[in-house]
Amino acid sequence: MSYQIDLNCDLGESFGNYRLGNDEQVLKFVTSANVACGFHGGDPGVMRRTVAICAAEGVAVGAHPGLPDLVGFGRRNMSVTPAEVYDMVVYQIGALMGFALAEGVSLRHVKAHGALYNMAAKDLELADAIARAVRDVDPKLVLFGLSGSKLIEAGKQIGLTTASEVFADRTYQSDGTLTPRTEAGSLITDVSQAVAQVLRMVKERTVEVKPAEEGGRSQVPIVAETVCLHGDGKHALQLAETLHKTLQSEGISLMPI
Amino acid sequence: MSYQIDLNCDLGESFGNYRLGNDEQVLKFVTSANVACGFHGGDPGVMRRTVAICAAEGVAVGAHPGLPDLVGFGRRNMSVTPAEVYDMVVYQIGALMGFALAEGVSLRHVKAHGALYNMAAKDLELADAIARAVRDVDPKLVLFGLSGSKLIEAGKQIGLTTASEVFADRTYQSDGTLTPRTEAGSLITDVSQAVAQVLRMVKERTVEVKPAEEGGRSQVPIVAETVCLHGDGKHALQLAETLHKTLQSEGISLMPI
Amino acid sequence: MSYQIDLNCDLGESFGNYRLGNDEQVLKFVTSANVACGFHGGDPGVMRRTVAICAAEGVAVGAHPGLPDLVGFGRRNMSVTPAEVYDMVVYQIGALMGFALAEGVSLRHVKAHGALYNMAAKDLELADAIARAVRDVDPKLVLFGLSGSKLIEAGKQIGLTTASEVFADRTYQSDGTLTPRTEAGSLITDVSQAVAQVLRMVKERTVEVKPAEEGGRSQVPIVAETVCLHGDGKHALQLAETLHKTLQSEGISLMPI
Amino acid sequence: MSYQIDLNCDLGESFGNYRLGNDEQVLKFVTSANVACGFHGGDPGVMRRTVAICAAEGVAVGAHPGLPDLVGFGRRNMSVTPAEVYDMVVYQIGALMGFALAEGVSLRHVKAHGALYNMAAKDLELADAIARAVRDVDPKLVLFGLSGSKLIEAGKQIGLTTASEVFADRTYQSDGTLTPRTEAGSLITDVSQAVAQVLRMVKERTVEVKPAEEGGRSQVPIVAETVCLHGDGKHALQLAETLHKTLQSEGISLMPI
Repeated sequence: MSYQIDLNCDLGESFGNYRLGNDEQVLKFVTSANVACGFHGGDPGVMRRTVAICAAEGVAVGAHPGLPDLVGFGRRNMSVTPAEVYDMVVYQIGALMGFALAEGVSLRHVKAHGALYNMAAKDLELADAIARAVRDVDPKLVLFGLSGSKLIEAGKQIGLTTASEVFADRTYQSDGTLTPRTEAGSLITDVSQAVAQVLRMVKERTVEVKPAEEGGRSQVPIVAETVCLHGDGKHALQLAETLHKTLQSEGISLMPI
Repeated sequence: MSYQIDLNCDLGESFGNYRLGNDEQVLKFVTSANVACGFHGGDPGVMRRTVAICAAEGVAVGAHPGLPDLVGFGRRNMSVTPAEVYDMVVYQIGALMGFALAEGVSLRHVKAHGALYNMAAKDLELADAIARAVRDVDPKLVLFGLSGSKLIEAGKQIGLTTASEVFADRTYQSDGTLTPRTEAGSLITDVSQAVAQVLRMVKERTVEVKPAEEGGRSQVPIVAETVCLHGDGKHALQLAETLHKTLQSEGISLMPI
Repeated sequence: MSYQIDLNCDLGESFGNYRLGNDEQVLKFVTSANVACGFHGGDPGVMRRTVAICAAEGVAVGAHPGLPDLVGFGRRNMSVTPAEVYDMVVYQIGALMGFALAEGVSLRHVKAHGALYNMAAKDLELADAIARAVRDVDPKLVLFGLSGSKLIEAGKQIGLTTASEVFADRTYQSDGTLTPRTEAGSLITDVSQAVAQVLRMVKERTVEVKPAEEGGRSQVPIVAETVCLHGDGKHALQLAETLHKTLQSEGISLMPI
Repeated sequence: MSYQIDLNCDLGESFGNYRLGNDEQVLKFVTSANVACGFHGGDPGVMRRTVAICAAEGVAVGAHPGLPDLVGFGRRNMSVTPAEVYDMVVYQIGALMGFALAEGVSLRHVKAHGALYNMAAKDLELADAIARAVRDVDPKLVLFGLSGSKLIEAGKQIGLTTASEVFADRTYQSDGTLTPRTEAGSLITDVSQAVAQVLRMVKERTVEVKPAEEGGRSQVPIVAETVCLHGDGKHALQLAETLHKTLQSEGISLMPI
């Protein structure tokens, strides 16, 4: 039996005089890049250069739209309406599409950023607004969303190809959701454990969950189509490299959705 | 002999809670709309609504990219590099293209806004940066520029279709350039005089110039392919309506480039 | 027995090329002005001119800090931390203080804007962050807040003079809170009814509430130290003028806290 | 004979999620800090923390106002009017004053940033606008400016205490102005040469100039009251540390103006 998985990371989050992340390095280990579009990070120059290096490395380019909150890096929930979300997502996908056209590559996917991603995971109205924005700009775009979330549900309902996203370095709860960062044990800091979690997700379509209440199952089913990696910090890069190498040696195809 | 001309105006320059212009009214009298893209004015919601009303009225939609100076409304010169100009124009065209795709219309043209338009009229490097940005996003887009300016020159050099823009309510100097606003007599406040100027431009391809130094010619040649109108204020709307009506009664075809 | 009340309105919410409100007109009817500080509206030039006209009219100048959300006009809730709120309030009070110093007037009060005001009305941690910011910049500043809210509670706890704000044109519920705008009957559109409500608030320290559930009291106590007026629209100006005139003819002193 | 000099550096230029500079480290070697105020860099949280560490280290706190150009880091010239400059400087000084009041320290000086500094060095109208803004907020504030510039001239004319700024790592021309960065030999990369230049400036009130046209003097007079240092990069920190140590060992008093 053959397996495949996509590895994605957020890219192009520098802004003006400010540098963030190790874009060139992490690009070697991923198959899809989510490029910031100027609202939570990124600027026109950063976007052009990011699309160009993605094109050079053969990595699939996607839009990474966020809330209009540069100082908060798009990580603070805002009470935005579905119409506002629709409009900000159309705008940001379009802006990145400009650079994709200029660099001669196609946009492949859209992954909402930070608070927008998290809000849309739980709120079907916001999820639907994102899905409609993606479809209305280009119905061939793949919609990324947290595995099991409303965003995936909204994307499927509307006829988009979706990519269920999982995390290598986060633990999951018995209901299949991520352990909140505010709780102890939410992060997996051991690289081999993180890699093992991904392997199980891909091959067995399950994830081990924390031994919760008595009688809790030790494994729950999960759909894993793309794995979220990071380029900020030595540890993140090491995980990206090890995961990339291990998946390849296991014969799992690494490719965009 | 048959004549044709395009009438354009800037649209969608409202922002958030702030309203600007009489978009619905002026739309009835123009054939091309230059839609602000969020840098000097406009926001994602305004852009969507503006593209929608243009589509409903059958007016050609173009991008109206400006400098990143919201508080200055894009009217203050900035010492931007050609690379920065290229990037900001690609970004803004792309963003508007997102809404054009979502609303099912095609972008037809690009007209730079305010200080960007003025700087590019005189600076060939900046003009070339705009022209390349337009071409790289979509070589079928028409580049608007001041008649006789570097922007038109740059657009032609790069192979774009260009539209030489003239003004109904501004006087011209004996070298064919606009009389600076800082000089007396730079504005034409009489509607019939403004209309007559446009008629002469279209039919005779000349413009009357101020009786300058002795021996100065009273008419100079000018290329008029699109006329700039405004929707802010009663006077501007009256000029737009009268010009629209007069050109039609003179049998001049009103249509986008 | 003698009564006194403050009449306040939001001012200086124009931005760059965008105009909002009728500042000069409403200024004649109020005793305190809440001046926008550049985050949800206002810009440095608008702030200077607004402080200058307040000084000329003898109206008390206060800061009107908002969330960093210009496109949303500071009306969208954001999940900001108390530390973020503290910092943004210190920044905005300070910025306005610059203009107060330059114009030779003193800041008298601080009233949070929009979503920040509403969030702090219910969330004691955010309310305390605002109160500490005000006190740390200048403990003589008066803290405005919704009558009966956490913001008033936090201000008193920290030793600030507070001003309990009431509304002329909003109805109240039997628990003394405002009827949500989403409910029918939340607005009082009749000017004489609005004026009567304020008179009762000032003289009898009560407000009539909607005949809610059976046995509900028809009047509830309320602390009214400042009344919120508006300058946008003909109706708002008419209410401001009538209220100002009626209060004066009733012998109620109009003055800042 | 006794000498004294001030050592200043730009601080607090981080923004939101973005980190810039080594503020804690360079603070040990300077006597005055120029704190960004949110227009070209800095945000309310960064400003508060920066003022707090300056207070803890006993370093004089000054405002570092810039043009409203975050993406360009305030380094791009803009055609701003004197009124706009006045307003943006009052606003930014005020905003920082808020944090100074909250942290219990006094603002000591104002140094314009980047393009604003450079434009005001040559344009007396803009220089005067900055000087008036400083005086109108607090006439005890010291105005920093390039030695020999219009900014120093404007400050003196208006009655402000001024601080003439020199550079350790830049070469000067025979007219006493800085060699433009675009020319070869504009930078002094050797630490001991940079330190020697400062010693000569302080003790002999002269600076060696490039052997320009024949007959050019090898030294020109210069007023050196504060030296500009940087905290970005290993080299800059090394220069700051060596200069600090050498000046002390030479018996030159290091202190704010």
